[in-house]
Amino acid sequence: MQGQSQQQAYDRGITIFSPDGRLYQVEYAREAVKRGTASIGIRTDDGVVLAVDKRIRSPLMERTSVEKIHKADDHIGIASAGHVADARQLIDFARRQAQVNQLRYGEPIGVETLTKAVTDHIQQYTQVGGARPFGVALIIGGIEDGEPRLYETDPSGTPYEWQALAVGADRGDIEDYLEANYSDDLSLDEGVDLALEALASVNDGGLTPEGIGLATVSVGDDGFGQLSDDEIESRLEAAGVLADEADEDDEDDEE
Amino acid sequence: MQGQSQQQAYDRGITIFSPDGRLYQVEYAREAVKRGTASIGIRTDDGVVLAVDKRIRSPLMERTSVEKIHKADDHIGIASAGHVADARQLIDFARRQAQVNQLRYGEPIGVETLTKAVTDHIQQYTQVGGARPFGVALIIGGIEDGEPRLYETDPSGTPYEWQALAVGADRGDIEDYLEANYSDDLSLDEGVDLALEALASVNDGGLTPEGIGLATVSVGDDGFGQLSDDEIESRLEAAGVLADEADEDDEDDEE
Amino acid sequence: MQGQSQQQAYDRGITIFSPDGRLYQVEYAREAVKRGTASIGIRTDDGVVLAVDKRIRSPLMERTSVEKIHKADDHIGIASAGHVADARQLIDFARRQAQVNQLRYGEPIGVETLTKAVTDHIQQYTQVGGARPFGVALIIGGIEDGEPRLYETDPSGTPYEWQALAVGADRGDIEDYLEANYSDDLSLDEGVDLALEALASVNDGGLTPEGIGLATVSVGDDGFGQLSDDEIESRLEAAGVLADEADEDDEDDEE
Amino acid sequence: MQGQSQQQAYDRGITIFSPDGRLYQVEYAREAVKRGTASIGIRTDDGVVLAVDKRIRSPLMERTSVEKIHKADDHIGIASAGHVADARQLIDFARRQAQVNQLRYGEPIGVETLTKAVTDHIQQYTQVGGARPFGVALIIGGIEDGEPRLYETDPSGTPYEWQALAVGADRGDIEDYLEANYSDDLSLDEGVDLALEALASVNDGGLTPEGIGLATVSVGDDGFGQLSDDEIESRLEAAGVLADEADEDDEDDEE
Amino acid sequence: MQGQSQQQAYDRGITIFSPDGRLYQVEYAREAVKRGTASIGIRTDDGVVLAVDKRIRSPLMERTSVEKIHKADDHIGIASAGHVADARQLIDFARRQAQVNQLRYGEPIGVETLTKAVTDHIQQYTQVGGARPFGVALIIGGIEDGEPRLYETDPSGTPYEWQALAVGADRGDIEDYLEANYSDDLSLDEGVDLALEALASVNDGGLTPEGIGLATVSVGDDGFGQLSDDEIESRLEAAGVLADEADEDDEDDEE
Amino acid sequence: MQGQSQQQAYDRGITIFSPDGRLYQVEYAREAVKRGTASIGIRTDDGVVLAVDKRIRSPLMERTSVEKIHKADDHIGIASAGHVADARQLIDFARRQAQVNQLRYGEPIGVETLTKAVTDHIQQYTQVGGARPFGVALIIGGIEDGEPRLYETDPSGTPYEWQALAVGADRGDIEDYLEANYSDDLSLDEGVDLALEALASVNDGGLTPEGIGLATVSVGDDGFGQLSDDEIESRLEAAGVLADEADEDDEDDEE
Amino acid sequence: MQGQSQQQAYDRGITIFSPDGRLYQVEYAREAVKRGTASIGIRTDDGVVLAVDKRIRSPLMERTSVEKIHKADDHIGIASAGHVADARQLIDFARRQAQVNQLRYGEPIGVETLTKAVTDHIQQYTQVGGARPFGVALIIGGIEDGEPRLYETDPSGTPYEWQALAVGADRGDIEDYLEANYSDDLSLDEGVDLALEALASVNDGGLTPEGIGLATVSVGDDGFGQLSDDEIESRLEAAGVLADEADEDDEDDEE
Repeated sequence: MQGQSQQQAYDRGITIFSPDGRLYQVEYAREAVKRGTASIGIRTDDGVVLAVDKRIRSPLMERTSVEKIHKADDHIGIASAGHVADARQLIDFARRQAQVNQLRYGEPIGVETLTKAVTDHIQQYTQVGGARPFGVALIIGGIEDGEPRLYETDPSGTPYEWQALAVGADRGDIEDYLEANYSDDLSLDEGVDLALEALASVNDGGLTPEGIGLATVSVGDDGFGQLSDDEIESRLEAAGVLADEADEDDEDDEE
Repeated sequence: MQGQSQQQAYDRGITIFSPDGRLYQVEYAREAVKRGTASIGIRTDDGVVLAVDKRIRSPLMERTSVEKIHKADDHIGIASAGHVADARQLIDFARRQAQVNQLRYGEPIGVETLTKAVTDHIQQYTQVGGARPFGVALIIGGIEDGEPRLYETDPSGTPYEWQALAVGADRGDIEDYLEANYSDDLSLDEGVDLALEALASVNDGGLTPEGIGLATVSVGDDGFGQLSDDEIESRLEAAGVLADEADEDDEDDEE
Repeated sequence: MQGQSQQQAYDRGITIFSPDGRLYQVEYAREAVKRGTASIGIRTDDGVVLAVDKRIRSPLMERTSVEKIHKADDHIGIASAGHVADARQLIDFARRQAQVNQLRYGEPIGVETLTKAVTDHIQQYTQVGGARPFGVALIIGGIEDGEPRLYETDPSGTPYEWQALAVGADRGDIEDYLEANYSDDLSLDEGVDLALEALASVNDGGLTPEGIGLATVSVGDDGFGQLSDDEIESRLEAAGVLADEADEDDEDDEE
Repeated sequence: MQGQSQQQAYDRGITIFSPDGRLYQVEYAREAVKRGTASIGIRTDDGVVLAVDKRIRSPLMERTSVEKIHKADDHIGIASAGHVADARQLIDFARRQAQVNQLRYGEPIGVETLTKAVTDHIQQYTQVGGARPFGVALIIGGIEDGEPRLYETDPSGTPYEWQALAVGADRGDIEDYLEANYSDDLSLDEGVDLALEALASVNDGGLTPEGIGLATVSVGDDGFGQLSDDEIESRLEAAGVLADEADEDDEDDEE
Repeated sequence: MQGQSQQQAYDRGITIFSPDGRLYQVEYAREAVKRGTASIGIRTDDGVVLAVDKRIRSPLMERTSVEKIHKADDHIGIASAGHVADARQLIDFARRQAQVNQLRYGEPIGVETLTKAVTDHIQQYTQVGGARPFGVALIIGGIEDGEPRLYETDPSGTPYEWQALAVGADRGDIEDYLEANYSDDLSLDEGVDLALEALASVNDGGLTPEGIGLATVSVGDDGFGQLSDDEIESRLEAAGVLADEADEDDEDDEE
Repeated sequence: MQGQSQQQAYDRGITIFSPDGRLYQVEYAREAVKRGTASIGIRTDDGVVLAVDKRIRSPLMERTSVEKIHKADDHIGIASAGHVADARQLIDFARRQAQVNQLRYGEPIGVETLTKAVTDHIQQYTQVGGARPFGVALIIGGIEDGEPRLYETDPSGTPYEWQALAVGADRGDIEDYLEANYSDDLSLDEGVDLALEALASVNDGGLTPEGIGLATVSVGDDGFGQLSDDEIESRLEAAGVLADEADEDDEDDEE
Repeated sequence: MQGQSQQQAYDRGITIFSPDGRLYQVEYAREAVKRGTASIGIRTDDGVVLAVDKRIRSPLMERTSVEKIHKADDHIGIASAGHVADARQLIDFARRQAQVNQLRYGEPIGVETLTKAVTDHIQQYTQVGGARPFGVALIIGGIEDGEPRLYETDPSGTPYEWQALAVGADRGDIEDYLEANYSDDLSLDEGVDLALEALASVNDGGLTPEGIGLATVSVGDDGFGQLSDDEIESRLEAAGVLADEADEDDEDDEE
């Protein structure tokens, strides 16, 4: 309904509404998320799977420094997509929240509680002037009262709970794959397979262990743990999506 | 009286009047409310009914995470329409107000008192610079001195008391339905039926339990309570508005 | 003397003068007042009459929630016209001033003292940056040293004292009626009649009790008091301005 | 030397110079003064005369509420012209200065000292950002060490001392009259006559007691005092400038 | 090198450089100085002469209220040209500096020390945002260690020391006259004559005592002193520059 | 997808997103990095090599004052490219972090910890208003737990870990050279040779000792150390890239 | 690569990058430096020479008040070029730093330490909003550990160390002369001669003692000292660059 020239009037200021009630800066921050490579979260009966596409722009770059999966607490992991430096701020915020909860109440922070603390923090940057929104989406997965929980935070500061989701590039296609293949009685291992297959569905030529990050948060004593390259490789092979050698695209600071 | 190009001059700043005395940013925030799916409140002799349309954008999303009905206190529930992240801020504000009142005066906060605390908070964001208005409308329903009370807060910070109302998408059509069918001697159960019928009046093909949120605040000891999916389903069936399987629309963060 | 395009240059900033010495934002705030329905104040020998047009946008809205008459203290009432949420801020400010005066000096605040505290507060919002003016006019009526007093506050922060006045829509026509019919030896009851007749003079088809708010502040022990619907109805009938059933207009948050 | 379009560039910001070294906002504030009705001050050997044109926009408005003459202290009066709400701020500031001086030094504040405190306050609003200049001029008249003193403050924050002056509408014509008729050996009564004649010289059809405010500050024990309507009427009659019944113009908040 | 339209881009902000390294707001403030009538300072072996052109816009204005010569301390006088209200701020600042120095060190402030305190204060207003530069130049003359000293402060905040100088209108012509006629062995009386002749050189028809302000700061015990009208008149007569009766120009607040 | 004129709308503000989710000011800060001469970091088994191109704009300038290699702590060195004055701020920040860590925990700061403290600091300048991003990239190399570590910080505030990298001018060409010639079993001496060869690959005519800065951080007791001119010369000769006498380019404050 | 109209978009704000990574306000501040007359610094074995062109705009101005050489401490002198009032701020800052160092550590501040404190201060004004950069360059010369040191600070906040340099007008030509004639075994007297010859190389018709400022900082006990007019004259004569009588140019506040 809005023409090009009218739109320009409302998308330059951070904290104002357009005539049709939209917040353009928040919508543009969502575009920053789409510029990042995909991250996936899957909830199973035994725990939560986090899988990320971590394409590297140079073979000389240390893969481990492309951080898209983070440990927030022993029982909570976070995957991100979008502006990397913004993600780091939110991860730090989440870790501090988890520590404060442990200190204050003597027990681990709930996954929902943590998610909502993060989204409230995000919302402030969309309403009060003098700053821009965060250009990042987080997948927060963890165990709460013995139950796996899986949340998303988006740049508007809205929390969503999911059974399985993707953020970042190709979100639509990956979610189509997940909707078609997810069932709520997956084991954790089956969840890992599904995550890898979903990532492979949008990567022609298969996946390499170097281009993938994989973590699980299990309901058992193990809690949060990242998989090694060897473990990832055998998983890729098992899932039939192991590439010979993936080509790497040049890429910006959205990941 | 105002042409297109002149209007543009006054709708970019938050806190200024247009030549005809309007606050465009507040009016645009009302558009953000209209972008959200509908919420309904109905006051009966026995209590207050809150019913919300909570369409989900994906079958993998947890319906419970689409929060449009919130418990503010044992005797007060709040339904929202519009920008979800903004709604969360106001809900948190309302809960803190309720707690403070309990601590300070040793008694539950009044529904009107709570509503006006919220609207005063909203008004500040329309007059003082450096922030945008809240893009959300709330329906605040509860029991005060044994009497059901039902209020609306709008983005200008104005409180209204209602017998029955709708906010969000299709407000006009739903209110037409309510005006035609509401009577002030409804029982709480009849109020629930009316709410569901009103929602169904703007949803072709009927309603699904998954797409509906329903809560009541009764004058009795029960206070605030949300209905389970099964309860909702039997109610939908009883009201003759149960759908086979509703199609889901893609939807933004206004709900 | 100013053309259209030149005017635009000076009416966007809150706190600057136009070349001909005008403050456009203040003038636009006066337009917000005109967008609200009318309020009337009449001073008689026995007390002050406050009468307001409180048209309701829906039959399901509680009439009492459309607050245009407020009690500021036992001996002072305030009627408003214009932006409702702004009015609430000023009413709260006035009530706090009245309480502080009682606490500090052990006596009720003077009507003039209260009025000037309010107008000084309003003026600040027209001179200092970072906020917009208040889009509301108040009629402050009360008893001071046994004498009825009647004041107006306008969006520039100027106080005026009146024998009888109107603010809001149709101000000019109502004031014409008052000038033609007011005399300074009215009894309080005659003042009520005059107020209702003046309101009726700009409402074709007469008035309904539901569409009218009416309060008096008498010099006697009663002080401030609002009339019930039944009382209003009998008064309307007595004044010959009772409608069969008034049509309601759709209306915004200016009232 | 400046064309129309170039001028526009420098008159929108409060605190910046134009290329020819002018402060447009201050000059526009002077226009706000000219929009107000005239005020006159005359210094005589026996005291100071303050006379103001206080046209009322409605017969129902209380004339006494149109305050253009104010008592700052027992020995100092102030007349204003221009934006009424701004005038009230400066009058309040002046009264506080007078009280502080009395408290701190145990003696009445000097007229010059008070004037310069006010002009320094005004100047700040012309240099520091975030506010607009005051749109008002004051005539400050009083007794200092037994001698009558008469000052003007203008919107730039410059103090001037006068034998006789006018501010507001028709300043030029009234000052021409004063220059032609003032002599420095006037008695206070003769000063009153001169002030009324000067006001009449720009009001066709003479003056009414209701349209005039008149005060004197005498060197004797009386100090500051305002004249009653009856006193004004007899003075008008004596001066031969009493009107039958003046027509009232509609008027804004500049007075 | 800069065209008209490009210049406009850099002269609206206070604190930014133009592409050729100029600060336009400072240069415009110098124009405000030129809009004021001239002030002259002359240093002689016996002391410093300050002479100012104080044309009055009306015969009813008290000449003494047009303050262009100020006593900063017993041994320092200051003459100003430009925006009068700005000058008052700097004079007040200078007086406070002089008092603080006396209190802190028990000795009179040095002329150079005082000048640099003033120019540092001025510079701040040219570099930090939120305010405009001072539109005034000062001539600071005094005695330091028994030696006459004569300084200028300009709107950029630069201090200059002079043997003789002029600021304000006709600066160039007056300085030409001073350069042609100044010698460094003048007596204080000869300095007074030179100052009057220099002022007369740009005023056709001679000078009047009322239009002149004259002060000296002598190395002897007298220190700072202003000359009376009679003294000025006899000096004008002696210098052969006494006018019959000068015509007065209308004038703004730059003096 | 974006035309020229649309781009201009989003690149002037620091902290806002463009419609395609980019932060133009951060991207322009990266251009400031490219304007600086190249800096190289190489990680070997024995330690880290930092090599910088430090072309001098005049033979009279002291080469040592062109600081592109800095000691952050005994075990950490930092090389920079881009805006020199900005680099100094970040280096100072890094040194303070290292000192605080030593004081607080009694042990040297980790290389990764230090890098992330710096990038978090950088990120703040890209999100919060009132400042611009840092126009500099750092290469942070050091020893942590006996292992060489090599990091990059970019203007968005993203940390990357590398085996070998270049920042500044010719980054692409130098990284191509490094990718072709780097192997992960280099000795520290071989790393120095590779760094010099890589720099020479983009400098026609070879390198001069004066135009090169070279430092190593070894895993042994030596820690951080800069090489002398003589050492550099013999290394250049050994690597076969010693120039006769390099021509110097004029250069700005990006280095 | 940038056209005229695009450049305009980036040079108005203080703290933002242009698309090619430049900070225009800093570059414009460098233009302010070029508008000032030249200053020269030369380092010799025995000490540092500071020589400045201090053309005076009027013969009546005291030459000593044109301060371009300042004593920062007994062992450090500073010469400036550019905006005089800005220079004074930095000189004051430098002096305070020197005093604080003496008080805190009981020893004279190092020349490099002082220079970097000044450049860090300058850098802040180029990154944080609300102020403009300093429009001045400093030459800081002094003795540190018995060794002469010579530094430059530029408007970006970058420190450079030099053997010999010029800042201000004709920098390029003077540096050409210095590069051609400087040798690193000059005596302090030969350094003075070289400085005068370099200044003369860009001044047709030779130099006058009045138009030159000259100071040395020697490694011996003398430390910082300025030369008298007679000393300068004999030096000019000895160097064969003494003018008969130099013409003076009109000049602004850049010196």
